[in-house]
Amino acid sequence: MTTTESSQSLMPTLAGHYYTDPAIFALEQSRIFETQWFCAVRSADIAEPGTYRTVQIGRESVLVSRGRRGEINAFLNVCRHRGARLCTEQQGQVKRSFQCPYHAWTYGLDGKLIAAPNLTDMPDVDRGELGLHHLAVREWLGYAWVCLADDPPSFEDTVVADVAERLGGAEEIGAYDVASLSLGTRITYDVKANWKQIIENFMECYHCATIHPELTEVLPEFADGFAAQYYVGHGAEFGDDVQGFTVDGSEGAERLPGVGEHQNRRYYAMTVKPQVFINLVPDHVVFHRMFPLAPDRTLIECDWLYHPDVVASGTDLSRSVELFDRVNRQDFDACERCQLAMDSRSYAAGGVLVPSEHHIGAFHEWVRTRIGEETRSHDRAS
Amino acid sequence: MTTTESSQSLMPTLAGHYYTDPAIFALEQSRIFETQWFCAVRSADIAEPGTYRTVQIGRESVLVSRGRRGEINAFLNVCRHRGARLCTEQQGQVKRSFQCPYHAWTYGLDGKLIAAPNLTDMPDVDRGELGLHHLAVREWLGYAWVCLADDPPSFEDTVVADVAERLGGAEEIGAYDVASLSLGTRITYDVKANWKQIIENFMECYHCATIHPELTEVLPEFADGFAAQYYVGHGAEFGDDVQGFTVDGSEGAERLPGVGEHQNRRYYAMTVKPQVFINLVPDHVVFHRMFPLAPDRTLIECDWLYHPDVVASGTDLSRSVELFDRVNRQDFDACERCQLAMDSRSYAAGGVLVPSEHHIGAFHEWVRTRIGEETRSHDRAS
Amino acid sequence: MTTTESSQSLMPTLAGHYYTDPAIFALEQSRIFETQWFCAVRSADIAEPGTYRTVQIGRESVLVSRGRRGEINAFLNVCRHRGARLCTEQQGQVKRSFQCPYHAWTYGLDGKLIAAPNLTDMPDVDRGELGLHHLAVREWLGYAWVCLADDPPSFEDTVVADVAERLGGAEEIGAYDVASLSLGTRITYDVKANWKQIIENFMECYHCATIHPELTEVLPEFADGFAAQYYVGHGAEFGDDVQGFTVDGSEGAERLPGVGEHQNRRYYAMTVKPQVFINLVPDHVVFHRMFPLAPDRTLIECDWLYHPDVVASGTDLSRSVELFDRVNRQDFDACERCQLAMDSRSYAAGGVLVPSEHHIGAFHEWVRTRIGEETRSHDRAS
Repeated sequence: MTTTESSQSLMPTLAGHYYTDPAIFALEQSRIFETQWFCAVRSADIAEPGTYRTVQIGRESVLVSRGRRGEINAFLNVCRHRGARLCTEQQGQVKRSFQCPYHAWTYGLDGKLIAAPNLTDMPDVDRGELGLHHLAVREWLGYAWVCLADDPPSFEDTVVADVAERLGGAEEIGAYDVASLSLGTRITYDVKANWKQIIENFMECYHCATIHPELTEVLPEFADGFAAQYYVGHGAEFGDDVQGFTVDGSEGAERLPGVGEHQNRRYYAMTVKPQVFINLVPDHVVFHRMFPLAPDRTLIECDWLYHPDVVASGTDLSRSVELFDRVNRQDFDACERCQLAMDSRSYAAGGVLVPSEHHIGAFHEWVRTRIGEETRSHDRAS
Repeated sequence: MTTTESSQSLMPTLAGHYYTDPAIFALEQSRIFETQWFCAVRSADIAEPGTYRTVQIGRESVLVSRGRRGEINAFLNVCRHRGARLCTEQQGQVKRSFQCPYHAWTYGLDGKLIAAPNLTDMPDVDRGELGLHHLAVREWLGYAWVCLADDPPSFEDTVVADVAERLGGAEEIGAYDVASLSLGTRITYDVKANWKQIIENFMECYHCATIHPELTEVLPEFADGFAAQYYVGHGAEFGDDVQGFTVDGSEGAERLPGVGEHQNRRYYAMTVKPQVFINLVPDHVVFHRMFPLAPDRTLIECDWLYHPDVVASGTDLSRSVELFDRVNRQDFDACERCQLAMDSRSYAAGGVLVPSEHHIGAFHEWVRTRIGEETRSHDRAS
Repeated sequence: MTTTESSQSLMPTLAGHYYTDPAIFALEQSRIFETQWFCAVRSADIAEPGTYRTVQIGRESVLVSRGRRGEINAFLNVCRHRGARLCTEQQGQVKRSFQCPYHAWTYGLDGKLIAAPNLTDMPDVDRGELGLHHLAVREWLGYAWVCLADDPPSFEDTVVADVAERLGGAEEIGAYDVASLSLGTRITYDVKANWKQIIENFMECYHCATIHPELTEVLPEFADGFAAQYYVGHGAEFGDDVQGFTVDGSEGAERLPGVGEHQNRRYYAMTVKPQVFINLVPDHVVFHRMFPLAPDRTLIECDWLYHPDVVASGTDLSRSVELFDRVNRQDFDACERCQLAMDSRSYAAGGVLVPSEHHIGAFHEWVRTRIGEETRSHDRAS
């Protein structure tokens, strides 16, 4: 990369194989998705005891469900007897227990083995040792975050810190009381691109003028190419004649009760590594969770969250939803186009980041450090 | 697996990767399916000289056909000249020879090279060296068993011994004169599970109460979880009010002529390693052949065999067939559910076998010994 | 291969894994398709400045387009900024430049970086270093031949030499003035076979009597099994009652103006390594380009070329096209049938070449030398 050495303006990206190599993806699964806090399920989706969702985290199918005392539990979705997948549906509800449909081993909502055929004839069996594998769970912002590590990292130093670093303080997001909001719409996108393409795309706005006509209409400063994520504590200001964060700039819903004057008519965005992207506007929150399934495939679940009264009243949210739905589709098309060429010799040493993209370099460094490729990274820089 | 060490009741299973690792499957292909006797084709399916079937055995397409003197031959299904697949159909009939459709090299029904264009201009060519690759064949129970090994193991010490070990003597199966029976129905199942899942499922009945309501109705003792294969020489007895081995317990066909009084109203089952499962009831035989195609895919051909008079008379066999067809579907659903979770860290060291499943451990040991993984097995146990 | 040692008539082929092993295919991509001259695009398909085609060469998507001064350029189809695929369509036309649809980096038709958002704010960026990656291009016979090597081999010593070696002089093909011809018909075939199967098939005629009834009717000598490619400078003669190179031997178009008397009523064929097959008959040319996509998949684009007046007049070419279209389909069926069995132990050491196929051995040696497997080849021969 002689180019990057001859220029202050340009920084190198990750090399192309980071986006295609199954060995790199395997490292990301074992050392990122299976060790960091992973935003798995919206808490309200499993409101009643016995309701559950199954989600893919790294290489594991994870069963996230509501317990009898209202707590959320997460388990590896595998029977301890002969390894049958316990729940095969994406969501459902059980009464008091999870029963394996193969040999009827039965687990309480807390994961404990409570019954199995002929179990009374095996007095030496320690039921305590044969419960479902428990995983760490934290609730925040109305979502259940799961960690597959035996010794999870500090939630505050990772998840909360990512929000704080971007907003200039974690308390800033408190104003939106995200956990209290209701789901207006959810759209799931199946994208043929590596998860890092999608993260990088979210982080920069150098592409906004080219592919996001509606967004730059609402947020004129985005036409200059500097993303909200480029700054600390910066909210992009609505255009003068824009009334709301909608596809045509028409009025949105009422401002959320806690949103301060300095946050009004502004758009904030942040990435929570490794797989969450949150967007805050005065009247709603757009919350993305990414589920990396393969080196070249990522599922994205995007929630549009509003004040419960707005959702309950049946207000027409279509123009509000359409704005970011269009932005998503425009972005994911671009990501898929990049994915196609990651194997080219032209990208073997990577490409370049312009100044308004330089902060992506920190994300690249974070990935390399996590998967233990620091040395290679240093080699390249020298 | 500290669990298994602390309990007499529980034995360990194979580790999960045995069911998913392509390297393990490759070993199973080369060291099990391509070295043991493999039950390939029902003899009656190739009754006339020149009729043939092609079947997949391990990594090879095998051509099994009836010769001019009525003998059955098996060949690698490959032309010796430029390697074209000789027969691409699953079944067919030729007159006197197999002719390669590419360059017309022509082989007799005995596999000898008998003609090729311009062959007379190549006097130095030894036709004897250029015949089709012959494979060992044995007929037993009305099926052609093929062995791809250069030096096949003793048929008696493997195939026959497996039957004898289960029934307490090979002569017991003689009473059913399986070779004399006619095909009533054949159903082929395409199952997304490792072949060993299917073998293990056939071997135990701990799941019967949970997934086989019709079967446990007919064979009430199965509700206790002990399979016929758990014992030696044991036939599971029909329920008192059961008249036949049918989906609703209604009357079946007449008892087969040779079936003795001690075998009447009883169900016997046996596994012939590596890929056959035979079920004997007084009026018919259900004969499964498994064709492992991939670590997570197995084709199963299941034959319902009856006395020739029964088939010839057009007797309604639907209730008789429906019983085991339902059992098959129930079993294969369970196997597919297990296959899904074999990759989980929760099953990385395997699961557990309860007492009524302990005999599966011998099958696991047999697999490990065949593929040369004894050492690893001993390591795990210590 | 004791067979081949005991016989002068039989020579060994490549071993079966040469046709299935992804590692061999990777070597062929990097050391053959990405280093040799590759016949990529028919020049007339990109007649106007700004018209382009995208083609797969080895592992690369290549953009071949007409420049402003009428020259043909070839580039790696990848933006230098973040690696987006520049053109995703198989063909198209731009006005003055290629603009990346992600961040609007813009390249001239000559590949130079001419604009990018905020580029003026990065005065230290050397645009000259950030142009599209240029590839070597040569036009010959009306086609653009592209070479991905930094230091391409001599076009004359490879492409032209292959033609000359077969015809006994490169000037022989001049008589057909191939570059002046017009496209009558193009048919694309998607073949489930390794590219070498297809080359080998084109090189020999031992199969002609078996699978090409129409062709041997028109060229009776082909029934003896000796291909035009077996000889130097030999054209296969039309049958006495054959009037033209058509599916039924009926009259074709008028003889091409430059075709000499010694070339009349004759069929010439040649392979230009690695991926072109050219057929010359008095009134037209059949030109095959192969695009190897996977060890077991090759795309073949076949052009039927006629005198411009013939195409312009709307003459019915169907019987002329049908002859080689049938030949193609017959050949590709045979290639697919061979591909099926390349993995068999029966072909692990390869098969045999009869005398009329011996010249294929030189192609095998060429492949082995290119991919650096000479040693293994010598080992096998000793």
